[in-house]
Amino acid sequence: MSKRGLLVVISGPSGVGKGTVRREFMKNEDLNRCYSVSMTSRAPRAGEREGIDYFFVTREEFEKAIEEGKLLEWTEFVGNYYGTPLEYVERLRDEGKNVILEIEVEGAAQIKAKCPDVLMIFITPPSMEELERRIRGRRTEAEEIVQQRLAKAEREMTYVGQYKYVICNEEVDLAAELISVIIRNHMKKQNAE
Amino acid sequence: MSKRGLLVVISGPSGVGKGTVRREFMKNEDLNRCYSVSMTSRAPRAGEREGIDYFFVTREEFEKAIEEGKLLEWTEFVGNYYGTPLEYVERLRDEGKNVILEIEVEGAAQIKAKCPDVLMIFITPPSMEELERRIRGRRTEAEEIVQQRLAKAEREMTYVGQYKYVICNEEVDLAAELISVIIRNHMKKQNAE
Repeated sequence: MSKRGLLVVISGPSGVGKGTVRREFMKNEDLNRCYSVSMTSRAPRAGEREGIDYFFVTREEFEKAIEEGKLLEWTEFVGNYYGTPLEYVERLRDEGKNVILEIEVEGAAQIKAKCPDVLMIFITPPSMEELERRIRGRRTEAEEIVQQRLAKAEREMTYVGQYKYVICNEEVDLAAELISVIIRNHMKKQNAE
Repeated sequence: MSKRGLLVVISGPSGVGKGTVRREFMKNEDLNRCYSVSMTSRAPRAGEREGIDYFFVTREEFEKAIEEGKLLEWTEFVGNYYGTPLEYVERLRDEGKNVILEIEVEGAAQIKAKCPDVLMIFITPPSMEELERRIRGRRTEAEEIVQQRLAKAEREMTYVGQYKYVICNEEVDLAAELISVIIRNHMKKQNAE
């Protein structure tokens, strides 16, 4: 019988490269991992597919899901809702899959409250100077926007104490390897239970 | 030509099991590691050997070393000085050895200021409740002493934000493996330079 899968949350400040690290370690097929699809009230963009890029719902449907406690975490961003459907994650875990979420620190804190067995991993920048360089490097933005992003990242860094594992993204390969070692160890424990 | 070795600091709150984790990963001989011997003004105890357990000096000699900036970090504890001799560490690193220090968070902060290329790893407990259990389990102590230790550990936990790598000691083997992976990666980088 296949054991229940893990719930793994990859979080960290904006601009730190969570997505890059996540995509890198997810190349390891032995991790039996799958990436969780989010639910959103935003309209699909060209090429986006239902159930692959997002689960697309109306604002009303999203609000109903919040009321009924059907979301593991959710947030509102520029007028649209984004969240993680609880039932969907539970089903994947019941099938033995290790579900990977890559989310912002506030969503991650919501999950920890609802799901104490979550494996939370925080990605940090080598330094705040390097994070600033990465945020500036992304695209050409007004200085005001850059400053807002930096202030947000600094706030997000204060969540670090809530995490059992903190990994510096100074090198994507090392960060991905460390996360793989952590997940493999927890898979072994899950199987031994 | 052998490359200069790394300086690796293992720190974390009192009672977290730094020593256990450190001894475990130091079993890996490929890490080319050596444990740094501290200098102390405390008198040798039965069986303690000069240059192996400690470098034993007088109070006056220790204070002279502080004044002359010959210590990477130092502290005073129950009337005795303890510290890490800079020249000794430098010599080992010049010989290509990776020098491992296992020290308290305040000493670690001193090192970071003096030696920016230090690789700092913070060990955390699975939870503060578990840390309390470990501190109480150590020996039978008056409740007041236990409370002092806990308050100290909580203060020490606030240093976590200064570390690039934070590793939970929920399982010694996993913690030791993660540290080994980090050191091997940094050795590779050192050799590539």
